[in-house]
Amino acid sequence: MAGQLAEKIILGIDPGTNVMGYGVIKVEDRKASIITMGVIDMRKEDDMYLKLGHIFQRVNGIIESYLPDEMAIEAPFFGKNVQSMLKLGRAQGVAIAAAINHSVPITEYAPMKIKMAITGTGTASKEQVAGMLQRMLHLDQNDMPKFFDATDALAAAYCHYLQMGKPDTGKKGPKSWKEFVSSNPGKVSKRKTGSVDK
Amino acid sequence: MAGQLAEKIILGIDPGTNVMGYGVIKVEDRKASIITMGVIDMRKEDDMYLKLGHIFQRVNGIIESYLPDEMAIEAPFFGKNVQSMLKLGRAQGVAIAAAINHSVPITEYAPMKIKMAITGTGTASKEQVAGMLQRMLHLDQNDMPKFFDATDALAAAYCHYLQMGKPDTGKKGPKSWKEFVSSNPGKVSKRKTGSVDK
Repeated sequence: MAGQLAEKIILGIDPGTNVMGYGVIKVEDRKASIITMGVIDMRKEDDMYLKLGHIFQRVNGIIESYLPDEMAIEAPFFGKNVQSMLKLGRAQGVAIAAAINHSVPITEYAPMKIKMAITGTGTASKEQVAGMLQRMLHLDQNDMPKFFDATDALAAAYCHYLQMGKPDTGKKGPKSWKEFVSSNPGKVSKRKTGSVDK
Repeated sequence: MAGQLAEKIILGIDPGTNVMGYGVIKVEDRKASIITMGVIDMRKEDDMYLKLGHIFQRVNGIIESYLPDEMAIEAPFFGKNVQSMLKLGRAQGVAIAAAINHSVPITEYAPMKIKMAITGTGTASKEQVAGMLQRMLHLDQNDMPKFFDATDALAAAYCHYLQMGKPDTGKKGPKSWKEFVSSNPGKVSKRKTGSVDK
Protein backbone atom coordinates (compact mmCIF):
# COMPACT_ATOMS: atom_id res chain seq x y z
CA MET A 1 0.00 0.00 0.00
CA ALA A 2 3.02 2.29 0.43
CA GLY A 3 2.87 5.25 -1.89
CA GLN A 4 -0.69 4.44 -2.93
CA LEU A 5 -3.71 6.63 -2.31
CA ALA A 6 -6.86 5.01 -1.04
CA GLU A 7 -10.21 6.20 -2.37
CA LYS A 8 -10.90 9.60 -0.92
CA ILE A 9 -13.71 12.11 -1.15
CA ILE A 10 -12.57 15.73 -0.88
CA LEU A 11 -14.92 18.63 -0.25
CA GLY A 12 -13.70 22.04 -1.36
CA ILE A 13 -15.25 25.18 0.07
CA ASP A 14 -14.88 28.79 -1.03
CA PRO A 15 -16.49 30.66 1.87
CA GLY A 16 -18.19 33.97 1.32
CA THR A 17 -20.90 35.93 3.05
CA ASN A 18 -23.09 36.33 -0.04
CA VAL A 19 -22.23 33.34 -2.19
CA MET A 20 -20.40 30.26 -0.90
CA GLY A 21 -19.03 27.79 -3.41
CA TYR A 22 -18.58 24.06 -2.91
CA GLY A 23 -17.09 21.30 -4.99
CA VAL A 24 -16.73 17.58 -4.31
CA ILE A 25 -14.19 15.31 -5.98
CA LYS A 26 -13.41 11.61 -5.70
CA VAL A 27 -9.82 10.36 -5.81
CA GLU A 28 -9.46 6.73 -6.84
CA ASP A 29 -6.31 5.01 -8.15
CA ARG A 30 -4.59 8.39 -8.02
CA LYS A 31 -7.16 9.85 -10.45
CA ALA A 32 -9.53 12.63 -9.51
CA SER A 33 -13.06 12.95 -10.84
CA ILE A 34 -15.80 15.42 -10.05
CA ILE A 35 -18.83 14.38 -8.03
CA THR A 36 -20.62 17.72 -7.80
CA MET A 37 -20.16 21.45 -7.51
CA GLY A 38 -22.46 24.38 -6.80
CA VAL A 39 -23.10 27.44 -4.72
CA ILE A 40 -25.04 28.42 -1.62
CA ASP A 41 -26.61 31.70 -2.67
CA MET A 42 -27.45 33.99 0.25
CA ARG A 43 -27.81 37.27 -1.64
CA LYS A 44 -31.58 37.41 -1.12
CA GLU A 45 -31.15 37.08 2.63
CA ASP A 46 -30.62 40.32 4.52
CA ASP A 47 -30.23 38.95 8.03
CA MET A 48 -26.63 38.03 8.83
CA TYR A 49 -27.62 35.20 11.18
CA LEU A 50 -29.92 33.66 8.58
CA LYS A 51 -27.02 33.84 6.09
CA LEU A 52 -24.73 32.08 8.57
CA GLY A 53 -27.52 29.61 9.39
CA HIS A 54 -27.84 28.76 5.69
CA ILE A 55 -24.11 28.14 5.44
CA PHE A 56 -24.11 25.90 8.52
CA GLN A 57 -27.12 23.88 7.42
CA ARG A 58 -26.04 23.53 3.78
CA VAL A 59 -22.44 22.59 4.58
CA ASN A 60 -23.75 20.06 7.12
CA GLY A 61 -26.10 18.73 4.42
CA ILE A 62 -23.31 18.47 1.82
CA ILE A 63 -21.10 16.61 4.31
CA GLU A 64 -23.94 14.23 5.18
CA SER A 65 -24.71 13.62 1.48
CA TYR A 66 -21.18 13.08 0.16
CA LEU A 67 -19.35 11.93 3.31
CA PRO A 68 -16.05 13.66 2.50
CA ASP A 69 -12.89 12.33 4.13
CA GLU A 70 -11.29 15.76 4.09
CA MET A 71 -12.25 19.37 3.58
CA ALA A 72 -10.15 22.02 1.85
CA ILE A 73 -11.07 25.67 2.18
CA GLU A 74 -9.90 28.66 0.26
CA ALA A 75 -8.83 31.09 2.96
CA PRO A 76 -7.51 34.56 2.19
CA PHE A 77 -5.37 35.85 5.01
CA PHE A 78 -5.53 39.46 3.95
CA GLY A 79 -8.39 41.67 2.95
CA LYS A 80 -9.33 45.22 2.23
CA ASN A 81 -10.61 46.14 5.67
CA VAL A 82 -11.35 44.80 9.14
CA GLN A 83 -15.12 44.82 8.54
CA SER A 84 -14.95 42.50 5.53
CA MET A 85 -12.42 40.23 7.27
CA LEU A 86 -14.70 39.90 10.31
CA LYS A 87 -17.61 38.91 8.02
CA LEU A 88 -15.42 36.50 6.08
CA GLY A 89 -14.07 35.04 9.33
CA ARG A 90 -17.62 34.39 10.53
CA ALA A 91 -18.56 32.65 7.27
CA GLN A 92 -15.37 30.56 7.47
CA GLY A 93 -16.01 29.80 11.15
CA VAL A 94 -19.52 28.50 10.46
CA ALA A 95 -18.28 26.28 7.59
CA ILE A 96 -15.41 25.05 9.78
CA ALA A 97 -17.89 24.27 12.58
CA ALA A 98 -19.90 22.10 10.18
CA ALA A 99 -16.73 20.13 9.36
CA ILE A 100 -15.78 19.85 13.05
CA ASN A 101 -19.37 18.72 13.70
CA HIS A 102 -18.68 15.70 11.48
CA SER A 103 -15.00 15.23 12.47
CA VAL A 104 -13.84 16.08 8.94
CA PRO A 105 -10.20 17.25 8.94
CA ILE A 106 -9.70 20.70 7.44
CA THR A 107 -6.81 22.09 5.39
CA GLU A 108 -6.80 25.66 4.23
CA TYR A 109 -5.11 27.10 1.20
CA ALA A 110 -4.43 30.72 0.32
CA PRO A 111 -6.02 31.72 -3.01
CA MET A 112 -2.59 32.22 -4.59
CA LYS A 113 -1.49 28.73 -3.57
CA ILE A 114 -4.60 27.21 -5.19
CA LYS A 115 -4.08 29.16 -8.42
CA MET A 116 -0.45 28.14 -8.46
CA ALA A 117 -1.32 24.46 -7.92
CA ILE A 118 -3.95 24.41 -10.67
CA THR A 119 -2.52 26.68 -13.35
CA GLY A 120 1.14 27.02 -12.47
CA THR A 121 0.84 30.73 -11.80
CA GLY A 122 -0.33 32.44 -8.63
CA THR A 123 -1.80 35.35 -10.54
CA ALA A 124 -4.12 33.30 -12.79
CA SER A 125 -7.64 34.66 -13.32
CA LYS A 126 -10.74 32.83 -12.14
CA GLU A 127 -11.48 32.09 -15.81
CA GLN A 128 -8.07 30.45 -16.24
CA VAL A 129 -8.58 28.35 -13.09
CA ALA A 130 -12.03 27.27 -14.32
CA GLY A 131 -10.65 26.48 -17.80
CA MET A 132 -7.83 24.37 -16.40
CA LEU A 133 -10.24 22.45 -14.14
CA GLN A 134 -12.54 21.89 -17.11
CA ARG A 135 -9.69 20.21 -19.01
CA MET A 136 -8.25 18.28 -16.09
CA LEU A 137 -11.60 16.94 -14.87
CA HIS A 138 -13.04 16.54 -18.40
CA LEU A 139 -16.02 18.77 -17.70
CA ASP A 140 -18.50 19.49 -20.44
CA GLN A 141 -19.03 23.18 -21.25
CA ASN A 142 -22.67 22.73 -20.17
CA ASP A 143 -21.51 21.52 -16.76
CA MET A 144 -19.59 24.73 -16.11
CA PRO A 145 -21.32 26.77 -13.40
CA LYS A 146 -22.53 30.36 -13.61
CA PHE A 147 -20.55 31.36 -10.54
CA PHE A 148 -16.79 31.20 -10.22
CA ASP A 149 -17.36 30.54 -6.50
CA ALA A 150 -18.19 26.94 -7.50
CA THR A 151 -15.06 26.45 -9.64
CA ASP A 152 -12.96 28.19 -6.97
CA ALA A 153 -14.24 25.66 -4.42
CA LEU A 154 -13.58 22.80 -6.83
CA ALA A 155 -10.09 24.24 -7.30
CA ALA A 156 -9.53 24.12 -3.51
CA ALA A 157 -10.51 20.43 -3.50
CA TYR A 158 -8.32 19.71 -6.54
CA CYS A 159 -5.40 21.61 -4.99
CA HIS A 160 -5.75 19.45 -1.88
CA TYR A 161 -5.72 16.33 -4.06
CA LEU A 162 -2.48 17.52 -5.72
CA GLN A 163 -0.93 18.21 -2.29
CA MET A 164 -2.00 14.81 -0.90
CA GLY A 165 0.33 12.96 -3.25
CA LYS A 166 3.24 15.06 -2.09
CA PRO A 167 4.43 14.11 1.40
CA ASP A 168 6.82 16.75 2.67
CA THR A 169 10.13 15.19 1.74
CA GLY A 170 11.97 18.43 1.36
CA LYS A 171 11.91 18.07 -2.42
CA LYS A 172 9.80 20.65 -4.17
CA GLY A 173 7.09 18.97 -6.20
CA PRO A 174 5.52 20.33 -9.35
CA LYS A 175 3.13 23.22 -8.80
CA SER A 176 0.58 22.02 -11.35
CA TRP A 177 -0.13 19.32 -13.91
CA LYS A 178 1.15 21.73 -16.53
CA GLU A 179 4.47 21.98 -14.74
CA PHE A 180 4.53 18.22 -14.07
CA VAL A 181 3.85 17.46 -17.73
CA SER A 182 6.51 19.85 -18.99
CA SER A 183 9.12 18.61 -16.52
CA ASN A 184 8.25 14.90 -16.91
CA PRO A 185 7.69 14.26 -20.65
CA GLY A 186 8.75 10.64 -20.26
CA LYS A 187 6.20 9.82 -17.57
CA VAL A 188 3.33 11.41 -19.41
CA SER A 189 4.18 9.83 -22.78
CA LYS A 190 3.75 6.33 -21.28
CA ARG A 191 0.03 6.89 -21.28
CA LYS A 192 -1.04 8.89 -24.27
CA THR A 193 1.61 10.85 -26.09
CA GLY A 194 0.56 14.03 -27.78
CA SER A 195 -2.79 14.47 -26.02
CA VAL A 196 -1.48 16.96 -23.54
CA ASP A 197 -1.70 20.09 -25.58
CA LYS A 198 -4.90 19.22 -27.40
CA MET B 1 -49.32 38.76 30.33
CA ALA B 2 -48.74 42.04 28.50
CA GLY B 3 -45.64 43.77 29.78
CA GLN B 4 -44.58 40.73 31.75
CA LEU B 5 -41.46 38.72 31.14
CA ALA B 6 -41.69 34.95 31.28
CA GLU B 7 -38.83 32.98 32.83
CA LYS B 8 -35.89 33.14 30.50
CA ILE B 9 -32.39 31.73 30.47
CA ILE B 10 -29.84 33.96 28.74
CA LEU B 11 -26.39 32.80 27.67
CA GLY B 12 -23.78 35.50 27.26
CA ILE B 13 -20.65 34.83 25.23
CA ASP B 14 -17.44 36.87 24.94
CA PRO B 15 -15.74 35.19 21.98
CA GLY B 16 -11.98 35.12 21.73
CA THR B 17 -9.43 32.89 20.08
CA ASN B 18 -7.43 32.23 23.23
CA VAL B 19 -9.94 32.60 26.02
CA MET B 20 -13.71 32.59 25.49
CA GLY B 21 -15.95 33.73 28.32
CA TYR B 22 -19.48 32.55 29.06
CA GLY B 23 -22.11 33.55 31.57
CA VAL B 24 -25.61 32.23 32.13
CA ILE B 25 -28.37 34.14 33.90
CA LYS B 26 -31.98 33.35 34.71
CA VAL B 27 -34.65 36.02 34.48
CA GLU B 28 -37.75 35.35 36.57
CA ASP B 29 -40.38 37.86 37.68
CA ARG B 30 -38.26 40.55 36.00
CA LYS B 31 -35.34 39.71 38.30
CA ALA B 32 -32.05 38.39 37.04
CA SER B 33 -29.87 35.91 38.90
CA ILE B 34 -26.67 34.18 37.95
CA ILE B 35 -26.61 30.48 37.10
CA THR B 36 -22.97 30.11 36.14
CA MET B 37 -20.01 31.79 34.48
CA GLY B 38 -16.60 30.66 33.34
CA VAL B 39 -14.11 30.51 30.53
CA ILE B 40 -13.04 28.15 27.78
CA ASP B 41 -9.26 28.38 27.97
CA MET B 42 -7.53 27.49 24.69
CA ARG B 43 -4.13 29.05 25.38
CA LYS B 44 -2.40 25.68 25.67
CA GLU B 45 -3.69 24.62 22.27
CA ASP B 46 -1.55 25.63 19.30
CA ASP B 47 -3.65 24.26 16.47
CA MET B 48 -6.25 26.76 15.29
CA TYR B 49 -8.76 24.06 14.30
CA LEU B 50 -8.47 22.38 17.69
CA LYS B 51 -9.10 25.80 19.29
CA LEU B 52 -12.20 26.29 17.13
CA GLY B 53 -13.24 22.69 17.82
CA HIS B 54 -13.04 23.36 21.57
CA ILE B 55 -15.22 26.43 21.20
CA PHE B 56 -17.81 24.56 19.15
CA GLN B 57 -17.97 21.58 21.49
CA ARG B 58 -17.98 23.62 24.70
CA VAL B 59 -20.59 26.12 23.51
CA ASN B 60 -22.74 23.19 22.33
CA GLY B 61 -22.25 21.58 25.76
CA ILE B 62 -23.16 24.78 27.63
CA ILE B 63 -26.31 25.16 25.51
CA GLU B 64 -27.27 21.51 26.13
CA SER B 65 -26.65 21.89 29.89
CA TYR B 66 -28.44 25.19 30.55
CA LEU B 67 -30.92 25.28 27.64
CA PRO B 68 -30.76 29.04 27.08
CA ASP B 69 -33.71 30.72 25.37
CA GLU B 70 -31.46 33.39 23.91
CA MET B 71 -27.79 34.07 23.36
CA ALA B 72 -26.08 37.46 23.58
CA ILE B 73 -22.58 37.90 22.23
CA GLU B 74 -20.11 40.68 22.74
CA ALA B 75 -19.07 41.59 19.21
CA PRO B 76 -16.49 44.27 18.46
CA PHE B 77 -16.93 45.66 14.97
CA PHE B 78 -13.50 47.19 14.75
CA GLY B 79 -10.07 45.86 15.51
CA LYS B 80 -6.43 46.62 15.16
CA ASN B 81 -5.77 44.65 11.99
CA VAL B 82 -7.35 42.34 9.43
CA GLN B 83 -5.51 39.29 10.78
CA SER B 84 -6.95 39.60 14.27
CA MET B 85 -10.42 40.36 12.91
CA LEU B 86 -10.35 37.24 10.74
CA LYS B 87 -9.39 35.14 13.78
CA LEU B 88 -12.06 36.82 15.91
CA GLY B 89 -14.63 36.33 13.13
CA ARG B 90 -13.85 32.62 13.03
CA ALA B 91 -14.23 32.28 16.80
CA GLN B 92 -17.52 34.20 16.64
CA GLY B 93 -18.67 32.11 13.67
CA VAL B 94 -18.07 28.83 15.50
CA ALA B 95 -19.93 30.06 18.62
CA ILE B 96 -22.76 31.34 16.40
CA ALA B 97 -22.91 27.95 14.64
CA ALA B 98 -23.37 26.23 18.01
CA ALA B 99 -26.33 28.53 18.74
CA ILE B 100 -27.79 27.99 15.26
CA ASN B 101 -27.28 24.24 15.82
CA HIS B 102 -29.73 24.48 18.73
CA SER B 103 -32.02 27.15 17.21
CA VAL B 104 -31.07 29.66 19.90
CA PRO B 105 -31.71 33.25 18.71
CA ILE B 106 -28.63 35.46 18.82
CA THR B 107 -28.30 39.16 19.61
CA GLU B 108 -24.96 40.89 19.44
CA TYR B 109 -23.84 43.92 21.38
CA ALA B 110 -20.85 46.15 20.81
CA PRO B 111 -18.52 46.28 23.86
CA MET B 112 -19.29 49.96 24.42
CA LYS B 113 -23.04 49.28 24.42
CA ILE B 114 -22.60 46.58 27.08
CA LYS B 115 -20.44 48.84 29.27
CA MET B 116 -22.97 51.62 28.87
CA ALA B 117 -25.89 49.32 29.80
CA ILE B 118 -24.16 47.96 32.91
CA THR B 119 -22.27 50.94 34.31
CA GLY B 120 -23.81 53.96 32.61
CA THR B 121 -20.61 54.83 30.78
CA GLY B 122 -19.27 53.37 27.55
CA THR B 123 -15.69 53.84 28.63
CA ALA B 124 -15.92 51.83 31.87
CA SER B 125 -13.04 49.47 32.65
CA LYS B 126 -13.47 45.70 32.84
CA GLU B 127 -12.97 46.04 36.61
CA GLN B 128 -15.84 48.52 36.83
CA VAL B 129 -18.11 46.24 34.77
CA ALA B 130 -17.21 43.27 37.00
CA GLY B 131 -17.77 45.36 40.16
CA MET B 132 -21.19 46.54 38.99
CA LEU B 133 -22.24 42.98 38.10
CA GLN B 134 -21.05 41.80 41.50
CA ARG B 135 -23.35 44.29 43.19
CA MET B 136 -26.32 43.83 40.86
CA LEU B 137 -26.23 40.03 40.93
CA HIS B 138 -25.16 39.84 44.62
CA LEU B 139 -22.03 37.85 43.86
CA ASP B 140 -19.69 36.91 46.65
CA GLN B 141 -16.08 38.08 46.26
CA ASN B 142 -15.05 34.39 46.21
CA ASP B 143 -17.35 33.79 43.24
CA MET B 144 -15.60 36.41 41.14
CA PRO B 145 -13.63 34.76 38.34
CA LYS B 146 -9.94 35.11 37.59
CA PHE B 147 -10.62 36.12 33.99
CA PHE B 148 -12.52 39.22 32.93
CA ASP B 149 -13.65 37.22 29.88
CA ALA B 150 -16.16 35.51 32.20
CA THR B 151 -17.54 38.76 33.64
CA ASP B 152 -17.57 40.30 30.16
CA ALA B 153 -19.71 37.40 28.96
CA LEU B 154 -21.96 37.73 32.00
CA ALA B 155 -22.21 41.45 31.18
CA ALA B 156 -23.39 40.59 27.64
CA ALA B 157 -26.14 38.37 29.09
CA TYR B 158 -27.11 41.04 31.64
CA CYS B 159 -27.11 43.73 28.95
CA HIS B 160 -29.50 41.58 26.91
CA TYR B 161 -31.73 41.20 29.95
CA LEU B 162 -31.81 44.98 30.39
CA GLN B 163 -32.65 45.44 26.69
CA MET B 164 -35.42 42.80 26.78
CA GLY B 165 -37.55 44.93 29.03
CA LYS B 166 -37.26 47.87 26.66
CA PRO B 167 -39.35 47.40 23.54
CA ASP B 168 -38.38 50.02 21.00
CA THR B 169 -41.11 52.59 21.64
CA GLY B 170 -39.05 55.56 20.59
CA LYS B 171 -38.62 56.59 24.24
CA LYS B 172 -35.09 56.33 25.46
CA GLY B 173 -34.85 54.02 28.45
CA PRO B 174 -32.28 54.19 31.23
CA LYS B 175 -28.83 53.00 30.23
CA SER B 176 -28.13 51.17 33.49
CA TRP B 177 -29.61 50.39 36.89
CA LYS B 178 -27.54 53.26 38.25
CA GLU B 179 -29.26 55.65 35.87
CA PHE B 180 -32.64 54.00 36.48
CA VAL B 181 -32.22 54.30 40.23
CA SER B 182 -31.11 57.90 40.09
CA SER B 183 -33.93 58.89 37.75
CA ASN B 184 -36.64 56.83 39.50
CA PRO B 185 -36.15 57.28 43.24
CA GLY B 186 -39.85 56.63 43.89
CA LYS B 187 -39.94 53.27 42.18
CA VAL B 188 -36.89 51.98 43.93
CA SER B 189 -37.90 53.18 47.38
CA LYS B 190 -41.01 50.97 47.26
CA ARG B 191 -38.79 47.96 47.75
CA LYS B 192 -35.93 48.72 50.03
CA THR B 193 -34.99 52.31 50.53
CA GLY B 194 -31.38 53.07 51.20
CA SER B 195 -29.98 49.74 50.13
CA VAL B 196 -28.91 50.95 46.75
CA ASP B 197 -25.62 52.54 47.68
CA LYS B 198 -24.69 49.98 50.28
